[in-house]
Amino acid sequence: MLILVLNSGSSSIKFQLLSMPSGTMMCSGFVERIGNPGARFYLETTKGEYDKEQEVPGHQKGLEIIATHLTNPELGLLQPGQKISAVGHRVVHGGKFYAQTVKVTQIVKEKIKELASLAPLHNPNNLLGIEVSEQLFPEAEQVAVFDTAFHQSIPEKAYRYAIPNVFYDDHGIRVYGFHGTSHKYVSERASEYLGRIPSRMITIHLGNGCSITAIRDGKSVDHSLGFGPSNGLIMGTRSGDIDHALIFYLLERGYTAEELNQILVKESGMYGLTRLRDLRDIQSAAEKGDRNSILALDMMSYRIRKYIGAYAAAMNGLDVLVFTAGIGENSALVREQVCGEMDYLGLEIDPDKNQKAKRGICEVQSFDGRVKILIVPTNEELEIARQTYQLLK
Amino acid sequence: MLILVLNSGSSSIKFQLLSMPSGTMMCSGFVERIGNPGARFYLETTKGEYDKEQEVPGHQKGLEIIATHLTNPELGLLQPGQKISAVGHRVVHGGKFYAQTVKVTQIVKEKIKELASLAPLHNPNNLLGIEVSEQLFPEAEQVAVFDTAFHQSIPEKAYRYAIPNVFYDDHGIRVYGFHGTSHKYVSERASEYLGRIPSRMITIHLGNGCSITAIRDGKSVDHSLGFGPSNGLIMGTRSGDIDHALIFYLLERGYTAEELNQILVKESGMYGLTRLRDLRDIQSAAEKGDRNSILALDMMSYRIRKYIGAYAAAMNGLDVLVFTAGIGENSALVREQVCGEMDYLGLEIDPDKNQKAKRGICEVQSFDGRVKILIVPTNEELEIARQTYQLLK
Repeated sequence: MLILVLNSGSSSIKFQLLSMPSGTMMCSGFVERIGNPGARFYLETTKGEYDKEQEVPGHQKGLEIIATHLTNPELGLLQPGQKISAVGHRVVHGGKFYAQTVKVTQIVKEKIKELASLAPLHNPNNLLGIEVSEQLFPEAEQVAVFDTAFHQSIPEKAYRYAIPNVFYDDHGIRVYGFHGTSHKYVSERASEYLGRIPSRMITIHLGNGCSITAIRDGKSVDHSLGFGPSNGLIMGTRSGDIDHALIFYLLERGYTAEELNQILVKESGMYGLTRLRDLRDIQSAAEKGDRNSILALDMMSYRIRKYIGAYAAAMNGLDVLVFTAGIGENSALVREQVCGEMDYLGLEIDPDKNQKAKRGICEVQSFDGRVKILIVPTNEELEIARQTYQLLK
Repeated sequence: MLILVLNSGSSSIKFQLLSMPSGTMMCSGFVERIGNPGARFYLETTKGEYDKEQEVPGHQKGLEIIATHLTNPELGLLQPGQKISAVGHRVVHGGKFYAQTVKVTQIVKEKIKELASLAPLHNPNNLLGIEVSEQLFPEAEQVAVFDTAFHQSIPEKAYRYAIPNVFYDDHGIRVYGFHGTSHKYVSERASEYLGRIPSRMITIHLGNGCSITAIRDGKSVDHSLGFGPSNGLIMGTRSGDIDHALIFYLLERGYTAEELNQILVKESGMYGLTRLRDLRDIQSAAEKGDRNSILALDMMSYRIRKYIGAYAAAMNGLDVLVFTAGIGENSALVREQVCGEMDYLGLEIDPDKNQKAKRGICEVQSFDGRVKILIVPTNEELEIARQTYQLLK
């Protein structure tokens, strides 16, 4: 069964074509700078790459370009008679309505639209991707996979804020959580690898966005991203946890809400502390003694450690710790800083194994460590394809 | 040596007269509703109470009333020839300048004034109390004891936020921490009681304001109140930690910054969730099955548990846990909920000892518990008098 995975953003559409259930990737690519000068289409297949600038006025055109290439006999992506059976759409916000992946219906589309107020940068574009895809692939099933779904198992004591009930009842203000597809994927790969579903697992997704999930018996029970995608861990350009009093302080001093929101989302985090955008550059600078970079790395790993501690308390201990995504998979330094001086929890990393970790699932705890420390590469597209396949099969 | 302790707030002045070094309290009382109708002076001595409504147009008059009574020979508070040697002033914000208690000088007064932007509700009134006190007790030493001082030992990785450096450099935005006098006092009483300074201690101050401190070898190394007094634990009417994204969300929907700040400080926390102001009422309602009260108590204790876990991670384990202040000293239920299912950390409470805990320092861990669990009554006035005495002796 061929499944097309679509991630339709504000000015880009990322896609992958996968053959399921094997999970073989047939091709992947993206359209970027939609509606802007210098728009570009990129496609990578087993046979080669296509990369060209071309005008892409809107998502309709962008998806048409993708569809045309996927079905172009010269590229040989589809065998004669073969068709795309389903399109799996990444949808950021499923609110309280979706704890599972679902087939797209009129009601589902209405809910995605309704939830646009909670994810104004994402849900409208996700919906646009679905609607264009319905026209271009009328025979394919359209499936919505929500970033929030995995976290719908978080209990009320953890998803509520201590603010007047009216904000929950009337505005839906609560923890939703994000990166759910990634946390679910790596937690399931970890369970497969271990041959059992661990009772108490923590998964740490460290990419440009960063988040951490407490997973009890396979179910998310707490998570660091809350109502929006800016809380919790220190990220590339997002602050993570701050004292909200500083917002009121700066509003009084003449900053506008819009400016502050932009600063906290786009100019804070590791970038705000170092003015560097790539963790590898921050690591190099730290090695050369740059004070800001050393501090930023200390702050990042200290914050992660406190969350590990908090979630261990939430689950009365810890059995498995999983690192994933760009930084989690590739930065031995961050993993070592995070796991240092945590032996009170049975958490001990083997520096040598950690340094030598290769692509694929690796186990890097020390011989004495009670807690398994795993590095598990994430693959959100594959997870979307898997869930789509599971739903339809 | 007689020491007068003054806590001068926006519309009240609380005072205690103590004989040091014994710590014997000679009298205590307050002036309240200063500048408002129904202003009232209250004084309690070993011989009786004085309670009368009288006009108090300002702090000057309020302190004059206090001074007149303290020195009134009929009340017999001062023996002939005896005088007040020092006035210890509670000052909320010492910023980064004061890690210690200091004698008041012109420079100290200027710093307290300078820091008013960080504590607009407190520092100006604290300063006013100092200035009036200098006139009324010209022979006494004036001493400033800062609520923030104990937390000046917090390391940079814990006191910085991941926001652009300019906010730290130019605006002084960082974790300052509060309730320092209480955390210092109970941690020192706990050390005295145990006969050693514990390596890893956590003190939990649960009053109307709530906060938690990680104390390594007697020094504060992390704390839940940050730049302002609203972060961290769920308090009587303050939210504690929230996702700051909800502020921007509600600002966009027409709330003003002032309204939101008021809501988060005065209408949130346990009150926001239950519409009840007293924890005892919330506990009674929960016993009768009130859903909101049960949830609020769950949320409160869950938040505390996560902080215990986080600070245990920060210190690589835990040796001593201390409960203090109104709720911490008196609510067996909250202590039991906080310590439940935390045996991964060696934290186990004895339900019977916990229920039967009496006034004074109590030890309530179970026989198997590795972590000492202490209830230590706080006494901020005594701590201010002690620090004043130490400085002058």
